[in-house]
Amino acid sequence: MNRLLAMVLGILPCVAGAEAPYSEEIMTLQQARDLIEGCERYATAQDLPALSMAIYDAAGNLKLFVRQDGTTVATADFAHSKGRTAAITALTTSDLAEIEYADSTQPLGIPHLGALTIVQGGVPVPSVSGQHLGGFGVSGAPAADDEACGRAGIEHMQGAKRE
Amino acid sequence: MNRLLAMVLGILPCVAGAEAPYSEEIMTLQQARDLIEGCERYATAQDLPALSMAIYDAAGNLKLFVRQDGTTVATADFAHSKGRTAAITALTTSDLAEIEYADSTQPLGIPHLGALTIVQGGVPVPSVSGQHLGGFGVSGAPAADDEACGRAGIEHMQGAKRE
Amino acid sequence: MNRLLAMVLGILPCVAGAEAPYSEEIMTLQQARDLIEGCERYATAQDLPALSMAIYDAAGNLKLFVRQDGTTVATADFAHSKGRTAAITALTTSDLAEIEYADSTQPLGIPHLGALTIVQGGVPVPSVSGQHLGGFGVSGAPAADDEACGRAGIEHMQGAKRE
Amino acid sequence: MNRLLAMVLGILPCVAGAEAPYSEEIMTLQQARDLIEGCERYATAQDLPALSMAIYDAAGNLKLFVRQDGTTVATADFAHSKGRTAAITALTTSDLAEIEYADSTQPLGIPHLGALTIVQGGVPVPSVSGQHLGGFGVSGAPAADDEACGRAGIEHMQGAKRE
Repeated sequence: MNRLLAMVLGILPCVAGAEAPYSEEIMTLQQARDLIEGCERYATAQDLPALSMAIYDAAGNLKLFVRQDGTTVATADFAHSKGRTAAITALTTSDLAEIEYADSTQPLGIPHLGALTIVQGGVPVPSVSGQHLGGFGVSGAPAADDEACGRAGIEHMQGAKRE
Repeated sequence: MNRLLAMVLGILPCVAGAEAPYSEEIMTLQQARDLIEGCERYATAQDLPALSMAIYDAAGNLKLFVRQDGTTVATADFAHSKGRTAAITALTTSDLAEIEYADSTQPLGIPHLGALTIVQGGVPVPSVSGQHLGGFGVSGAPAADDEACGRAGIEHMQGAKRE
Repeated sequence: MNRLLAMVLGILPCVAGAEAPYSEEIMTLQQARDLIEGCERYATAQDLPALSMAIYDAAGNLKLFVRQDGTTVATADFAHSKGRTAAITALTTSDLAEIEYADSTQPLGIPHLGALTIVQGGVPVPSVSGQHLGGFGVSGAPAADDEACGRAGIEHMQGAKRE
Repeated sequence: MNRLLAMVLGILPCVAGAEAPYSEEIMTLQQARDLIEGCERYATAQDLPALSMAIYDAAGNLKLFVRQDGTTVATADFAHSKGRTAAITALTTSDLAEIEYADSTQPLGIPHLGALTIVQGGVPVPSVSGQHLGGFGVSGAPAADDEACGRAGIEHMQGAKRE
C-alpha cells in the first residue's frame, strides 16, 4: 500500500538539475471560475443540496471559494480540507482513503498528518495538457455527489472555449 | 504609508483574463543552493557567527533550509519567518518595517498579521529576468549582516553560470 | 476613545427577550458576487494591480473569496484579515485605526486582539435596508484604492436589480 | 506490545547523575549534507521520482531540508513528519507501525500523538560510534524506496572520509 501512496505523490515531472529558467503552468482565475460553474450546473441539474466549493492551486494556496446559501458552516471547512488535500497530493481524497485502508486492519494514519483528509469529494485538477494545476473540494451533498460535482467542474473547465 | 504598502504588494504582473495556459517562472533547487552558497561565502569572508538560512518559493512553501552548527534554535524560527515574509510579500522585511512605521506614532500592526515579520534579514529573490521567485531569510548575525548575506546569495545566484 | 469604540460596536439592534420567531437578514451568494463584480469593474476602470478579495458574513464565516492572477500570496492573507475584521466589528478597518490611535500616546492594541487588523481596505457591508450583512476585504492596490474598491462593490451590490 | 515500545524508546544511554561536564555528540551540518548526498545518489541511480528530504537533530529541531524540483507540496509535509518522528523516537517509522499494530486488534494510536507518523520512510541516524544523532525523513518515491534512500544516506554519511 505504501507503494501506491508514494507512486502517486511522485508523478509530477522531475526537473532536478535544471539550468535555465524553469516555468510551471499555473491555475488561472478563469479556470477556477469554470470549475465552479461546471459544478454548479451539475448540482442544479441533479437537484443537490447547497454546497461549499474550494479551489486551491498546486502550491496549496486558496484561489477561489464559494459558499452557497443555506449550507452549514462545516461544509466550508470540509471543502477547504478536501480541496487543499487534492491540491498538494495530486490525488483524489477517495484515492487517499483507499491508500489509508489498503490493509484494512492497519490504517496508515493519513488523516492525522496535518491538514490531509480522506473524505470523498476532493479531486486534483489537471490542465488540458495534463499538468497538475491544483485541487477542487466540494462539500454539502452526499460525498459521492460532491466528487461527481468536482469532476463535472473539471470537465466543464477543460471543455471551455473562450474567444 | 498605506499607498507604499499596497503599491509593492501589487507589483507582480496582472494576467487577469488569460485564456491560454498560463505559466510562471519557479525557483529551482539549483537556484536555492546557489543562494545558500553565496550567503555562506559572504559569512565566511566577513567572519560572521553561525547562521540559519531559509528559502521559500513565491507560493510560501519551504524549498531549502540550512542550520549551521552552533547557532541557537531561535535563529531557525527567525530565518523561516523572514524568508516566508519576503516570499509572500515580494518585499524585504526592512521595507516592511519602514511601511509599518511610515507614521512613527501610528504603526500599522503588520507583525500581528499572521506569519509576517518586520525584522531585517529577509529579502525577495528575483530571477535574472526580474520574476519574483521567492524569499531568502537569514538569521544569526547582526540583522544588517543577515540582510547583506541574503543579498550576497542573490548576487551569487544570478551570476552563477552552469555548463 | 473607548466610548467611541463602544458606540460603534454597539449599534447592532438588540433582540434579547424576543418571543416571536426571529430572523436576521443574511448575505446571499448573489450579493457577494455583486460585491466582487463591482470591485472588479472599479479596479479595471482605475487600472489597479491584481487583487485578493474576501467576503465574510456577519457571523465571521467566509462566504466568497477570489484571488486574481498575478498577485502575491500575502494579499490573500490581508484580504481575509480585512474582510473578517469588518464583518465581525461592523466597522471599516480605517475606522478601527482611528479608534486605535484616538489618543495617540495610548494605542489600544487592537491589532493584538487575535485576527483584527487596522490596515485600510476592509469595509462592512450593509443591505439596502441598513442591516449589517458582513465585511468585504480587498488587498493588492494602494490601501486607499483597496477601500475604494470595496465601496464600489457595495454600491454595485445595493444598486443591482435582478428580476 | 507496550514492553516492545518501551524497550526501543529506552535504548539511549542513561546519564542521570553525571558530575563532570557532560557532552552529547550532535549532528553536524556536514553530516546532514552527507545524508542528503547519499540519498540523492541512490535516487538518481534507482531513477526515483523527485523527493522531499528533511533532517532533524535529536532535539527535534530541523537541521536541513531539501525539496527537489517537481514534487508535490505534500511530500514536504511527509518528509518533515517522518524525519521528526525518527529523530525524537530513535526508531524507524516502520518500526513504529509494527509497534502500533503488534496487537492488530488493539492499535495504540501512535499517529494521534501529535506529530508522530507511522508511514514508512523515516530512519534514525546513528553516528559511527553509535550515538543517536537525529532522524532522516524522505518522501516522494514508493515508501520502501523512501526508506532505502534514507538508509543510503546514512551509509554514505558514515563512510564519508573528510581530510
